[in-house]
Amino acid sequence: MKLRVIKSALVDAVSHVSKAVSQKTTIPILTGIKAMADEQGLILTASNSDITIQVRVPKRKDDIDQVFVERMGNVVLPGKIFGDIVRKLPGDEVEWVVNERYQTTIRSEQAEFQLNGLDPDEYPRLPRLSTEQMFSISADTLKSLIRQTGFAVATTEARGVLTGVHLQLEAGTLTCVATDSHRLSRQQAAVEGSAELTLNNVIIPGKSLSELAKTLADETGYVDIIVAENQILVKNDGLEFYSRLLEGTYPDINRVIPKEGQTEMVTSTRELLQSVDRASLISRDGRDNVIKWTIRDEKVEVNSASQDIGSVTEEVIAKVNGPEMSISFNARYMMEALRSIESEEIRIQFTGTMTPFVIQPLDREDSLHLIVPIRTR
Amino acid sequence: MKLRVIKSALVDAVSHVSKAVSQKTTIPILTGIKAMADEQGLILTASNSDITIQVRVPKRKDDIDQVFVERMGNVVLPGKIFGDIVRKLPGDEVEWVVNERYQTTIRSEQAEFQLNGLDPDEYPRLPRLSTEQMFSISADTLKSLIRQTGFAVATTEARGVLTGVHLQLEAGTLTCVATDSHRLSRQQAAVEGSAELTLNNVIIPGKSLSELAKTLADETGYVDIIVAENQILVKNDGLEFYSRLLEGTYPDINRVIPKEGQTEMVTSTRELLQSVDRASLISRDGRDNVIKWTIRDEKVEVNSASQDIGSVTEEVIAKVNGPEMSISFNARYMMEALRSIESEEIRIQFTGTMTPFVIQPLDREDSLHLIVPIRTR
Repeated sequence: MKLRVIKSALVDAVSHVSKAVSQKTTIPILTGIKAMADEQGLILTASNSDITIQVRVPKRKDDIDQVFVERMGNVVLPGKIFGDIVRKLPGDEVEWVVNERYQTTIRSEQAEFQLNGLDPDEYPRLPRLSTEQMFSISADTLKSLIRQTGFAVATTEARGVLTGVHLQLEAGTLTCVATDSHRLSRQQAAVEGSAELTLNNVIIPGKSLSELAKTLADETGYVDIIVAENQILVKNDGLEFYSRLLEGTYPDINRVIPKEGQTEMVTSTRELLQSVDRASLISRDGRDNVIKWTIRDEKVEVNSASQDIGSVTEEVIAKVNGPEMSISFNARYMMEALRSIESEEIRIQFTGTMTPFVIQPLDREDSLHLIVPIRTR
Repeated sequence: MKLRVIKSALVDAVSHVSKAVSQKTTIPILTGIKAMADEQGLILTASNSDITIQVRVPKRKDDIDQVFVERMGNVVLPGKIFGDIVRKLPGDEVEWVVNERYQTTIRSEQAEFQLNGLDPDEYPRLPRLSTEQMFSISADTLKSLIRQTGFAVATTEARGVLTGVHLQLEAGTLTCVATDSHRLSRQQAAVEGSAELTLNNVIIPGKSLSELAKTLADETGYVDIIVAENQILVKNDGLEFYSRLLEGTYPDINRVIPKEGQTEMVTSTRELLQSVDRASLISRDGRDNVIKWTIRDEKVEVNSASQDIGSVTEEVIAKVNGPEMSISFNARYMMEALRSIESEEIRIQFTGTMTPFVIQPLDREDSLHLIVPIRTR
């Protein structure tokens, strides 16, 4: 393998795949980044037990020659140090030569590194996924779906399917749901040209999705999503992102979402968030981070008290419909839901002091957050 | 105690003293911030076992009324949460009322906090230092002295006086020295109007100085430095920063600094730093982070090798005087010294492969760094 590559393109590609490099693993080769040079340019791959990221540096991009392959070939290099070296190289162009024993020379201006490469045949192969179950979606929509549900997954491994986000595609609508059984977030989006395809019980680990959102941070075009039996692949021209799927059956969440509220309030998302944020300064001292709302007379009164520290009280103006209502809940769940909502105003529907309540942006139907109250004395 | 205060001024003052709030301590009251309201305004104090910071919020500043004291008094409030509350309060003005049982109400617009305050008489009193040993120095000069020596202190408590920076004032020159016995940094500055005062063996903990530099970050005027038997106080109109001093006798460092070199080189600070930074990507894998320089023929060759990873070599152009020289050293010590130097060019003087070598900015005499080489096979 022998090639020259524009440094900035190599730095970009390495920083993308670095997210998937295994830190600690019993399989040493997975701490490496696999490089392949072929007729189309350079391909980098990194993998851990959850995700695999593959990035292509094409020969030409935006009318600029980026990669000059003199001799095709493959090598696996230690991932962490290879990334650091590439970032710190002087000059604009990197020369990269690998001999038959995978001894690798990386040269740029006056600096020359020799790295002990590993045999690329030892590197696990990527799965070939059947493209039967495939649809396309804009990267922005996908990132928005992740941002508005991902925070609600359960974080302890033992919770099984609840550590993932559930994907369902039906009649052209993609529904993402996450819940840790104390709160739930659901976000929907229309998917053009997918009316023929039905997907259900596709459960993607929450961690994989948060890495995917970072990987797609600068992407604005469409990506293809391919769903196989135990893998999902998100790809566009330059990028392939694989994640394993979680096994098991996701619970039916429709029965836990109340159909209509008894008391309803409409208020400013930002003001409500700030009041909960302040109240949680007191409540976070306690075990469940409990704050209390009393909704009545065109306002919601926010309260929190801790025996050791003190208490807080404030009022937020709201449009209220229905009887007075007092409800206690975990302030963190509320803040995470409110932070994910972009609309200026929200509607909250309560069915009772001890039953789940529903938070929705006022101006759209595709987004829903549910929080289970906490019983207090 | 009862007062109103402009929120931004309070936020500033709290963020300054917060650096000194004890995190974990057997003296619970030290996790608090002491507030005192008097005729001049509001004073906040926080303290841990190393440092004490006191900040004054004067009644008027820059022709703007900041504090309106209605009833003088004192209270101690839990430091961490008080800081968080102040930062997150709505509105521009904070109302602050403390009753005789130190129950504290903090109110701003619609938000009202009740905090359980503590008896301020339980809070340790600040020492009254004799102003006999006092001099003034510009905050910028002081920060520069700290930045160019503080990194070289020993970091393990067991090293005693070497965990501090040694201050000496003699004939109007202030000399700061830090060493961990593997490297040494010395920085000098002229102190106007201090010719009468001689100070020696004043050893300030390195950690205290790094907090002092942060505390003075936005200060540009002069500060007074008062040295007492076991305390040092750095102060200006609004700020008092106390640190304990280290007990013991600082070693005489003059005998370890070689007087003249055998081989001397002059080169670009930045290029040399970048080459060492890259070489350390390989060497940091090893125990002592060893890289090797070979100085000859108008250049320095930088080398590093690790059996597992590989090797690196590069050349930096330099003006060289004297015989060829090979020397090995800890790359981190070199990077920290070079990063602290602001001059574009440096002079390095070598006396032998196994004797300390001296790094100095080319254009000034007041700064010196010394590194002890490492014996290699």
